[in-house]
Amino acid sequence: MFCLTHGTDPRWAERALENLDAVLVDHAHCELKAATNALSLAARSPGHPAVARALVALAEEEVAHLARVMDELGKRGLSLGPPQPDDYAAALRKLATASSKKRGPEDALVDRLLVGALIEARSCERFRLLADALATRGDTELAAFYEELFASEARHYRAFVELAEGVLGDERAARERLAVIAEAEGHLAATLGHHASIHG
Amino acid sequence: MFCLTHGTDPRWAERALENLDAVLVDHAHCELKAATNALSLAARSPGHPAVARALVALAEEEVAHLARVMDELGKRGLSLGPPQPDDYAAALRKLATASSKKRGPEDALVDRLLVGALIEARSCERFRLLADALATRGDTELAAFYEELFASEARHYRAFVELAEGVLGDERAARERLAVIAEAEGHLAATLGHHASIHG
Repeated sequence: MFCLTHGTDPRWAERALENLDAVLVDHAHCELKAATNALSLAARSPGHPAVARALVALAEEEVAHLARVMDELGKRGLSLGPPQPDDYAAALRKLATASSKKRGPEDALVDRLLVGALIEARSCERFRLLADALATRGDTELAAFYEELFASEARHYRAFVELAEGVLGDERAARERLAVIAEAEGHLAATLGHHASIHG
Repeated sequence: MFCLTHGTDPRWAERALENLDAVLVDHAHCELKAATNALSLAARSPGHPAVARALVALAEEEVAHLARVMDELGKRGLSLGPPQPDDYAAALRKLATASSKKRGPEDALVDRLLVGALIEARSCERFRLLADALATRGDTELAAFYEELFASEARHYRAFVELAEGVLGDERAARERLAVIAEAEGHLAATLGHHASIHG
């Protein structure tokens, strides 16, 4: 799907359904981190006001999603709880930072946008699997929710890629860099276990 | 206004109007920090799911305000730029942390909610002054915007106080603690200069 080089093992969806409460809590944290990450990037995009504005619009959607996931948690008597370490996102960001340090501040922004794109692509793939598994199980309401989020993460993926292209001013160079980060993300996703978490 | 023990020097509004661009950029950063602070607090309110949910609703509004302030920056050809250190908010949070460390984790949450209340009260007071000064100058559109935000910050102030009361389960104790923090905030506000910033 999109630029992903490694498809998620289908057993992930089984594991996720067996631990749906844990997945929902993890999902809430993913939306929260996506929102704070977009806001943090918006404040670190000087010279790119349109990028900053687009990132704030993304953050608005992430917070609205978070609110809806929390409503789902509330229905199930679950609470958000403290965040678990997100090894996946941390490893991706570290990779981008290490690589872009050797280049310039503009490249650091491009890399953070492309890492954002990859995280959205992976979430999108996982939400698709989750929506299908939930529908098969007959949980049509939650399936519809993940179906909707699948579409929304797909839009976010495209938005991040377009923002990176805009900053770099070179569509081809941005796509090449995306491929490099996607390759690294694929290796990372392949080495992850089958944890009951969105990126696990 | 509300629990504020120290009224802002009226010269602040003059200074703010003379440096309206800087005030708008600072205002954007205040909304951004308010949103990330509410999200961070939501993830640190285990055992209080209703508080976490209310904080996410507050964050939604703060991000929507940020989007509108950024549109205003866009009209003026301004960009967000990197954040300036916010000595006011940092000093208030430090004060609450130092004091609540001696008590319990529940008290730390109460103090962070009450610090949130104070920051909203001060913003509310400043937006009132700004709305009036803008109206006097004939800038009715921006005056109406700050008038609206004044009302919204007043609601946020009450929301934070009510959340703290709920966590503490004792309205009187929460009000007493609010008075202590308000006293400290008053001293802090009195020692600040008349900078062209929302809390300066």
